[in-house]
Amino acid sequence: MRMYDLIMKKRMGQALSHPEIRFFIDGFTRGDIPDYQASALLMAIWFKGMTREETALLTDAMARSGDMADLSDIPGTKVDKHSTGGVGDKTSLIIGPIVAACGGVVAKMSGRGLGHTGGTIDKLEAIPGLRTALGKEEFAGIVRQTGLAIIGQSGDIAPADKKLYALRDVTATVDSLPLIASSIMSKKLAAGSDAILLDVKTGSGAFMKTLDDSIALASEMVSIGESNGRRTMALITDMGSPLGRNIGNALELVEAVDILMGKGPEDLLGVCLELAAGMLLLCGIGKSDCDRREMIGAAISGGAALKRLIAMAGAQGADTSYLRDTGKFPAAKIISEVKAENSGYIFSIDAEAVGRAAVALGAGRASKEDSIDFSAGIVLLKKPGEKIKPGDSLALLHSSSDSRIKEAQGILLKALTVTEAAPPPAKHILARVTKDGVEKL
Amino acid sequence: MRMYDLIMKKRMGQALSHPEIRFFIDGFTRGDIPDYQASALLMAIWFKGMTREETALLTDAMARSGDMADLSDIPGTKVDKHSTGGVGDKTSLIIGPIVAACGGVVAKMSGRGLGHTGGTIDKLEAIPGLRTALGKEEFAGIVRQTGLAIIGQSGDIAPADKKLYALRDVTATVDSLPLIASSIMSKKLAAGSDAILLDVKTGSGAFMKTLDDSIALASEMVSIGESNGRRTMALITDMGSPLGRNIGNALELVEAVDILMGKGPEDLLGVCLELAAGMLLLCGIGKSDCDRREMIGAAISGGAALKRLIAMAGAQGADTSYLRDTGKFPAAKIISEVKAENSGYIFSIDAEAVGRAAVALGAGRASKEDSIDFSAGIVLLKKPGEKIKPGDSLALLHSSSDSRIKEAQGILLKALTVTEAAPPPAKHILARVTKDGVEKL
Repeated sequence: MRMYDLIMKKRMGQALSHPEIRFFIDGFTRGDIPDYQASALLMAIWFKGMTREETALLTDAMARSGDMADLSDIPGTKVDKHSTGGVGDKTSLIIGPIVAACGGVVAKMSGRGLGHTGGTIDKLEAIPGLRTALGKEEFAGIVRQTGLAIIGQSGDIAPADKKLYALRDVTATVDSLPLIASSIMSKKLAAGSDAILLDVKTGSGAFMKTLDDSIALASEMVSIGESNGRRTMALITDMGSPLGRNIGNALELVEAVDILMGKGPEDLLGVCLELAAGMLLLCGIGKSDCDRREMIGAAISGGAALKRLIAMAGAQGADTSYLRDTGKFPAAKIISEVKAENSGYIFSIDAEAVGRAAVALGAGRASKEDSIDFSAGIVLLKKPGEKIKPGDSLALLHSSSDSRIKEAQGILLKALTVTEAAPPPAKHILARVTKDGVEKL
Repeated sequence: MRMYDLIMKKRMGQALSHPEIRFFIDGFTRGDIPDYQASALLMAIWFKGMTREETALLTDAMARSGDMADLSDIPGTKVDKHSTGGVGDKTSLIIGPIVAACGGVVAKMSGRGLGHTGGTIDKLEAIPGLRTALGKEEFAGIVRQTGLAIIGQSGDIAPADKKLYALRDVTATVDSLPLIASSIMSKKLAAGSDAILLDVKTGSGAFMKTLDDSIALASEMVSIGESNGRRTMALITDMGSPLGRNIGNALELVEAVDILMGKGPEDLLGVCLELAAGMLLLCGIGKSDCDRREMIGAAISGGAALKRLIAMAGAQGADTSYLRDTGKFPAAKIISEVKAENSGYIFSIDAEAVGRAAVALGAGRASKEDSIDFSAGIVLLKKPGEKIKPGDSLALLHSSSDSRIKEAQGILLKALTVTEAAPPPAKHILARVTKDGVEKL
């Protein structure tokens, strides 16, 4: 088999076979196939696409290029959850505990934040003492004990994807649907869960800006998961405006605890209920949707979900007193109010810009090497649909320096669109994608 | 400027600007732009093409990536000739001397043979003593003295093209019209002549198999030449069957001398007359086409053209007695007759197969490192249109071993198509392409 022939085949719009895809991924991972041939193939894929079958095979080959987590020792259906990345998206911290409290098993690897989106691992590490780098045995032990553990990516997960992504990033071949979908799903397959719930964000703050594009990506990923023997479902959720009110690591953790205590913003609660119900469905828990929603409600109101979060954090080494009393989290050095200059209704708050403002405040990383200020971030006091008048407090900026505050304030004010008339009520869950098709909500 | 942006721009079908093309070629030649970005751009060019202006700019940038021959010290209009490669194509050895005898100036760099096509330098080196590696001063001196010199590629000619071609060869991006045209023309621009005549071969033995593709390539190359200030014209000539009767280095040289002595096959003579007339036109020599044909006829019949070949060969160190008496060329160890098995008319002789048979006999190189047997080759005793009956001699195979003869005979017999009815008369010159357009002949 020659890489040349694979490039030619794809260039002419033909589908690559299973042995051809294995040949490419194995050879590329080992370094036998040079980058210049891989990038030519990637560009040909960008132009000619891949069939659903090819994409599923590619994903499987990438997953098998490194360590495959084996969760089979842990009893129950293990369910994973993946978000394509948003601003203020702390749902994993909320639905992991809920699902565990309802009998699901969540053994999850999460990532760190980069650019305008945050990462679950950074948010967890805002709790003093909490460790996210655990060995296999310790990880499995905590999952067995609490039904829930969230750790950073460990081992050599999908090295082919890592190498391919780095190449796509410098050859203008990132935005190809089969390549995006296989990149995400290869890591999910390697992470070893039986079922996968996908939260595909849509809107200005998301990777996919339109509902159609988001549905296309979700369909591709559901197809990959199901083709590889994982029960997979996707929800398309809105990321036009940030999710919830808090953006920033400790601030988001506090808001997650609020939700688990029955408080917290409605949009965030709504999305979490839907995602948690989806995960329970994939686990085969509950007789009906109505049944699952009742279970979830009870897990929150009875405090069982919060207890699971505290149990997990404790098992991972955290000082859990911070979760019992979130007032203990150290405040930022400076907290500055952003005031309204006009009157009217908040029509929208550009999520991507809010993400950039949070990075400016110190809550995120512009590059992988940057360190994070856990206390930095933004609290949105007004959300889309709310009425404002000049002088109203719009947001609180938490940071360590005036220059950071100044920069973030400039970005944030530009992110707000204020109109005379109230906007139509926001819709947070836009579609559900299963192996049976797409259901717009 | 970032290479990433250039790839993205081309991927989206936009034209690259002059500074962008210079940035790419200069950076790639220096090694600052990695192969994996270059190959992604090449694949995007394969899909999206290039405008005529882009292609001309790309060619100029590639030409300028290395040495640019300066022929300005040599008086007169310097005219170059390029063939896209055929089997039995010894036209340079014939028309160079003719054009020089008619007052044109031919200072030419030629290549060696590779694969099924031969190269002028190999054919010249069949003459004992002839040197094709000359210094600039010696080269210019011979041109001044005889109006003609043909040497191998010397110096660092278009290194960008060399590097790009090697990359295209392994990334399935060879067959892109702007890339093919710019590759050929970059070397012609760097070679320094004022005018360029292109012989674009068409048919089974040529790189371009159809007339339309050949015309498209010719138009692209004429546009590149004219855009870069060189008078450029192309003729499309047939390469369905080999040109002339002899294939192989010494054998072709003998046939070239035959033509210059007023003998030799009609198809070869016809193509040479047309090419020589084109070169004289580009030099501004002769008042009319009729005038130029008369001059060419006189140069052959009066012996002036052969004298020029002998003068050039002598100046380049050759033992010219071989040209005065071509019977002196050593014969191959074995000369074997190929006999007809059927009766009928020769409909066609597949040129590419004949080329491969010649390589099998030892006349060519399968890879760059192979050495050549100057005496090896094929003499076609029957050409398309001729009648044959069983037992007729079809060809003579010249080689050093029986196993080579056996292999070549197998290839050659398959290359012949014999029909009951005579084929229509062959057309050797199919079209002329100038800056003013295409004229089918």
